[in-house]
Amino acid sequence: MEILMAKEAGFCFGVKRAVNIAERTLRERGRAFSLGPLIHNPQVVGQLREMGLEPVEGIEGVGRGPVIIRSHGVSRQLLEELESKGVEVVDATCPYVKRAQRWAASLSRRGYFVVVVGEEEHPEVRAIMSYIEGDGMVVEGPEGAGRIPRRRKIGVVAQTTQERGRFGEVIKALLPLCEELTIYNTLCEVTSKRQEEALRIAREVDCMIVVGGRNSANTRRLAELCSRVQPRTYHVETEEELRPEWFRGMRRVGITAGASTPIGTIRRVRDALVSRPFCGIRREAENL
Amino acid sequence: MEILMAKEAGFCFGVKRAVNIAERTLRERGRAFSLGPLIHNPQVVGQLREMGLEPVEGIEGVGRGPVIIRSHGVSRQLLEELESKGVEVVDATCPYVKRAQRWAASLSRRGYFVVVVGEEEHPEVRAIMSYIEGDGMVVEGPEGAGRIPRRRKIGVVAQTTQERGRFGEVIKALLPLCEELTIYNTLCEVTSKRQEEALRIAREVDCMIVVGGRNSANTRRLAELCSRVQPRTYHVETEEELRPEWFRGMRRVGITAGASTPIGTIRRVRDALVSRPFCGIRREAENL
Repeated sequence: MEILMAKEAGFCFGVKRAVNIAERTLRERGRAFSLGPLIHNPQVVGQLREMGLEPVEGIEGVGRGPVIIRSHGVSRQLLEELESKGVEVVDATCPYVKRAQRWAASLSRRGYFVVVVGEEEHPEVRAIMSYIEGDGMVVEGPEGAGRIPRRRKIGVVAQTTQERGRFGEVIKALLPLCEELTIYNTLCEVTSKRQEEALRIAREVDCMIVVGGRNSANTRRLAELCSRVQPRTYHVETEEELRPEWFRGMRRVGITAGASTPIGTIRRVRDALVSRPFCGIRREAENL
Repeated sequence: MEILMAKEAGFCFGVKRAVNIAERTLRERGRAFSLGPLIHNPQVVGQLREMGLEPVEGIEGVGRGPVIIRSHGVSRQLLEELESKGVEVVDATCPYVKRAQRWAASLSRRGYFVVVVGEEEHPEVRAIMSYIEGDGMVVEGPEGAGRIPRRRKIGVVAQTTQERGRFGEVIKALLPLCEELTIYNTLCEVTSKRQEEALRIAREVDCMIVVGGRNSANTRRLAELCSRVQPRTYHVETEEELRPEWFRGMRRVGITAGASTPIGTIRRVRDALVSRPFCGIRREAENL
């Protein structure tokens, strides 16, 4: 059995940055809070908790110590509330997410009806929506465009981890609804590349493993994308979930991982697959 | 044999307006010039010529009398040249085309690389291009987007008679090339509706007749669209081109027409089909 490893897998720039900021803060201050889990990976959140990072649900849970804003960002109202209460804020919002928030604010100030392409309940999307001063709406896919009212000017931003193809389909569906359509391409390039590479690998193998938190939207999206071209796609959080029967008779197995999956976890999945009872041999995706 | 007539067929608003302006000018002045044929229909151009309208190729062909700018518009340079030479100009440019020219100018003044989606050699597209002050390019379809350089800001307008689906595909292809994409939806609503109705009828019939000038891009596009869903699609300029063998064994025949086709021509095609040797019966498309 041959193992194809995706090159674009694991921590993205924004997650790496958020974890670094959290670790530095914890080293300096000993204790800190995060509003919700810092990243969507239970294993990493567990390690940070041991270092002194406490995830809280809302502002009322915050005790003495700085609050770290996670890479997805928070709503403008919550940020203002924290500041008005004199809470020390360490902002680890991904700069790409920040940019999407700024464009959403700028579009709405310029009189656009703002459409955010993404998952309505995702914290990143909820935070972006909070920066819209006028009218706006979240749209998950082209079918959602039917709910958008006809307007002279529609402005669009996307959740940074959206799939490029779906984003384009929404844009196409919005075109007949307005005279002016302004789109900020807020897709994270690394995420797009990761999705394209994962699809390419999934087409070349007999079985695909996607590693990452089950609460990670971008990991779930990777698994969903891969399963479109490779029905034998499995989403696992750690190597312990791998089952020998998945790989019986398989000649090539692909591995990719979400943006919040630590490299250590990915390596353990790979190492498990090249050992007994799996006994694969490694190959980097760059050789594809 | 049953005949299905498209409701949206024949002169569009812009063409009707241009012909009215020309006729009024000729009644008042007895003689006038048009730069190129006033509309892309040889029969109408012939009638207007009898009334005193002379189509000329360039400014040097213009004699004494006003120059009528046809519905497709002309380049900014040519308009300035006419004005600087003191030629009397009667502007019959379609207001929708004028709007596309203005948006192209506005985008380029605001620092956008301007993409015009349309046919490079069409006079409307050449006129729109002349309003771009900075960089720009004509793109005929999504494959053409490959030639566009990566830019921070790309602005897009379309030739008014482009097909909505193709326009959307170009937009999708431009999305990864820039951070900000601003699109003015300059598609003529009537043309889009006409194309959609023609496609709907073509799917319902055994044979489709598209009436209009062979030099009319929008008529050719209608015929091309219909032939995608109905291989027995025939493009005719007048009823004289109809051939009985096209209709042998056909139960339902559809008729549509381009934006520069006079209602009289369409009626003569319809009347021919309901008479010998064709002997169809009429039905309006609204009853579909």
